[in-house]
Amino acid sequence: MKLAIEEARAAAVKGEVPVGAVLVISGRVFTGRNRVITDSDPTAHAEIVAMRSAARDVGNYRLPGSCLYVTLEPCIMCVGAIVQARVERLVYGARDPRYGAVESMLRVFDLGVNHKPIVRSGALAEQAGELLTKFFEARRKGEVPKWS
Amino acid sequence: MKLAIEEARAAAVKGEVPVGAVLVISGRVFTGRNRVITDSDPTAHAEIVAMRSAARDVGNYRLPGSCLYVTLEPCIMCVGAIVQARVERLVYGARDPRYGAVESMLRVFDLGVNHKPIVRSGALAEQAGELLTKFFEARRKGEVPKWS
Repeated sequence: MKLAIEEARAAAVKGEVPVGAVLVISGRVFTGRNRVITDSDPTAHAEIVAMRSAARDVGNYRLPGSCLYVTLEPCIMCVGAIVQARVERLVYGARDPRYGAVESMLRVFDLGVNHKPIVRSGALAEQAGELLTKFFEARRKGEVPKWS
Repeated sequence: MKLAIEEARAAAVKGEVPVGAVLVISGRVFTGRNRVITDSDPTAHAEIVAMRSAARDVGNYRLPGSCLYVTLEPCIMCVGAIVQARVERLVYGARDPRYGAVESMLRVFDLGVNHKPIVRSGALAEQAGELLTKFFEARRKGEVPKWS
């Protein structure tokens, strides 16, 4: 999770909402950070960047036995991608009261989807959340350009 | 939608579940077909392939004013991506009773998400559905290799 937080910090430096992810599969480590603006890609959330990187490298669109660490509770799209990739364990940091689809806005894994990872939340949540709070504060003050 | 069905057919030829999509934005047309196996990418559903292609080309991760045609009712991941990309109109063909997240397994757009496209379903649904039925029949008979 520390590595995921480093990824989140690196995203913020680029003006991206600071969310970072790490996927571990068969002892190999793949990182991802939010890069929707950088890549002009609506799907380039940290989790998806890490999952795609791993799947490409492993040569399988499914990632059985993998563990995905992410600094923020995943949104609907990312929860859907976690199901598609058959991620075995999901560990996330801060809750996302507005868009979180694991326990906040929605509880997608409880809605009869065809795969449900083992979930742990709250890992380094304070650090992960603080990064986001500071980022949005800075953006409100105009210290970070708001892109929309 | 006819073009989306052609894309779906092209996916089947590659052994991929035959789903195709077309995204139209500012008079420009971007196509996508399911290529999860080909690309080893759990997120490479037809809709997402088309949205990514358009966003990259337009240079904006949001696609306001766009219309997305897809042969099959989108899954949770793709519905989430449609929200992220702010797709304005969604037109789909066949319902997906198992995984459809617009009206079948879930009705995500009615669950308080922060963007809701105008939705039309049933366009060329019979053709789109028949392609899928035939594909799965052929796969059960071993005429198409099952990949898992």
